Amino acid sequence: MDFQSVIANRKSGQGNTHLELQMLAIGAADHSIPDYQLSAWLMAECFQPLNEEETAWLTVAMAKTGAQLDLTGLPKPWIDKHSTGGVGDKTTIVLLPLLASCGLTIVKMSGRGLGITGGTVDKLESVPGFRMHLTPEELKTQAAAIGLAISGQTSHLAPADKTLYELRDATATVESIPLIVSSILSKKLAGGAEMVVLDVKCGSGGFMPDFESAKKLALALSETGKRIGMPVYISITEMEQPLGRMVGNLLEVQEAAWVLRGGTNRFTELCVELAAHTLVVAECTDSHEKGLSIAWAALREGRALLKAKQWFAAQGAEVDVFGIKDRLPKAKVQLTVSNPKGKGYVSKVDARSVGAAVVHLGGGREVVTDIIDPTAGVECLKHVGDQVEEDEPIFIVHAPSNHLAEQAAEQLREGFEVSEEPVKPLPLILETL
Amino acid sequence: MDFQSVIANRKSGQGNTHLELQMLAIGAADHSIPDYQLSAWLMAECFQPLNEEETAWLTVAMAKTGAQLDLTGLPKPWIDKHSTGGVGDKTTIVLLPLLASCGLTIVKMSGRGLGITGGTVDKLESVPGFRMHLTPEELKTQAAAIGLAISGQTSHLAPADKTLYELRDATATVESIPLIVSSILSKKLAGGAEMVVLDVKCGSGGFMPDFESAKKLALALSETGKRIGMPVYISITEMEQPLGRMVGNLLEVQEAAWVLRGGTNRFTELCVELAAHTLVVAECTDSHEKGLSIAWAALREGRALLKAKQWFAAQGAEVDVFGIKDRLPKAKVQLTVSNPKGKGYVSKVDARSVGAAVVHLGGGREVVTDIIDPTAGVECLKHVGDQVEEDEPIFIVHAPSNHLAEQAAEQLREGFEVSEEPVKPLPLILETL
Repeated sequence: MDFQSVIANRKSGQGNTHLELQMLAIGAADHSIPDYQLSAWLMAECFQPLNEEETAWLTVAMAKTGAQLDLTGLPKPWIDKHSTGGVGDKTTIVLLPLLASCGLTIVKMSGRGLGITGGTVDKLESVPGFRMHLTPEELKTQAAAIGLAISGQTSHLAPADKTLYELRDATATVESIPLIVSSILSKKLAGGAEMVVLDVKCGSGGFMPDFESAKKLALALSETGKRIGMPVYISITEMEQPLGRMVGNLLEVQEAAWVLRGGTNRFTELCVELAAHTLVVAECTDSHEKGLSIAWAALREGRALLKAKQWFAAQGAEVDVFGIKDRLPKAKVQLTVSNPKGKGYVSKVDARSVGAAVVHLGGGREVVTDIIDPTAGVECLKHVGDQVEEDEPIFIVHAPSNHLAEQAAEQLREGFEVSEEPVKPLPLILETL
Repeated sequence: MDFQSVIANRKSGQGNTHLELQMLAIGAADHSIPDYQLSAWLMAECFQPLNEEETAWLTVAMAKTGAQLDLTGLPKPWIDKHSTGGVGDKTTIVLLPLLASCGLTIVKMSGRGLGITGGTVDKLESVPGFRMHLTPEELKTQAAAIGLAISGQTSHLAPADKTLYELRDATATVESIPLIVSSILSKKLAGGAEMVVLDVKCGSGGFMPDFESAKKLALALSETGKRIGMPVYISITEMEQPLGRMVGNLLEVQEAAWVLRGGTNRFTELCVELAAHTLVVAECTDSHEKGLSIAWAALREGRALLKAKQWFAAQGAEVDVFGIKDRLPKAKVQLTVSNPKGKGYVSKVDARSVGAAVVHLGGGREVVTDIIDPTAGVECLKHVGDQVEEDEPIFIVHAPSNHLAEQAAEQLREGFEVSEEPVKPLPLILETL
């Protein structure tokens, strides 16, 4: 079987057999299929998408191209948590210790950020000493000891995905839903998960710009999860404005620490909602309401904070990010941006503008080889629905230079809008399935 | 401008600008755009084809990526002749000296064969000593001296096409009409042609399987020719059965020599028709009928043969292929295949089966790196419409071994059909435009 006919079958609409998709996954992993053939297949797939059966075949085939974590010995259920990524989305840093403090065991594979959505790997690595690359043995030992462990994506797990992901990024074939689904779920499957709790971000700062496409992705993830025997529980959550106050790697770690210490804002609420959802699907409790109470109590009573401290210590953090007094590095410049739009109600804090401003400041990557400035970022002082006075501070820019700070301020002002009428923010969670 | 956005614009249906297509051509020629991005663009093009304006832009851009022959000094018009390729299509070997003997000057760039359609380069190179790679200077000098010269495609002319052609072959993106058009015409343009006479073969042994698709290609070639200021005159010709008696490299050279010596069959007729068409468009005569007379006379009176002898001598042939006594190498085995289908009228000699049998015998390439056996081939003793007796010889297989000969015979029998009713062959020329 030559790969040219696999491409031709995809292109013609005939589709690919199970064997052909296994060949694709193996050839992508060991580079026996040249990149130019893979990218032709990827583009053909965008016009002739994989059906549900093919998506499941490809997902399993990709998961099998590398090492597969065996979590035997850890308490069940083996849960992984995933977000499609958004501006200010530091949910993982709160949710993992919160769930572990409620008795669950979490082993999570995490990715780096590209574009306006930051990656958890970058956020945690901005903490001096934090080790993001654990061996499978270390992951298991740590999870057994304290109930949670996280690792940056290793090339040992689903290496086919690494090849295909990089090619998709370079060939304008990122947004195909079956390819997104197989990319996400193959890594979870290889990581040993029995079930996945998944946050699909929807809006200008998320991966899916509108509800319709977010719903389509959610349904495809859910369907593929069923077919491969790894249930996927999904919340579609709002990402028109940044999540919480902080955007930027170290700033977000600080905000997560603040929430774990008991701070509450819209971001805290989302963490608690997602925790409750997870506790229900993991059958730790039988109703969402009870799940909410359990999660709030774990935060209030400091159990989540304690778990977080154990976690950071276990993975080598050299600075206590959870102490009241902040010992973390800071950006050279702090610039306050005032409301340029007059008195009224905030109607828009465009997540995309904020994300782009942070990338511009050096806090994110435009291309994979960019090096991140962990201290760069933006504090959002106002959120949709808030009242705002003329010239009231609305953002604080954390920048390496005045010049970059001024440029970022300009971008931020453009994404900020005020209405004379009261504005009701969108619900935090748009749909659960 | 990054090439990813060029791909995205193609994919979305927005199309590409002149500048983007220039960037594509240059990047393909100097390999500054990676193959995996080019192949993604090629696949997107198959679903969102280039429009007529874009096709012309790409054609000119590709022609400009390498050397451009300047034929100044040679008598006008500067004509190139091209065939899309078919089984037993040795037209070039007759037509070039025939036209030169009628006073035209022909400088032709020629290609190698792949699959069932042989290439003129391979046919001529099967003659011991024949040099298929002339420098631009040699081409011009020879054309000035004797009125014709041919060269295998050099990487100096339209190198962008070389890159794209190889990628298309490997990525199931060969059959896009705009890509075929730009590939053919960019080489002609770079080769210095002012006008092109083009034979689009249509049928099971041709590049285009049916008349509708052949017509579509012909119209696209004609339209692009107009737009780039290089008129293209097209005959759509029949390729359901092999052209003439011989299929296979040296065998075809021998048949061409036989025609030049005055032999006449269906293949001779096609050569004369195409010659007449060319004489009219080159304004050497004012009607097709007069063109036919001129061409027949050149053959009958030995002028075409004389020109062919000059030509072969000028390009280094060490054997006189035009002498009555055949001095060319022969295959080890000659196997006669008899009619297995009973008495009647031949209704089918499937060109595809014959072409495939010749490739199987070693007379053609399955992949570009295959080495060709110049002596391998098939003689077709019967043609559509001929009467045939039970067990009458219908093919002679020229093979390197009995084993391969038997296998080829099996393939040939399958493509041969007999009808009890008289059968009328298809017309030789289906349409001219």
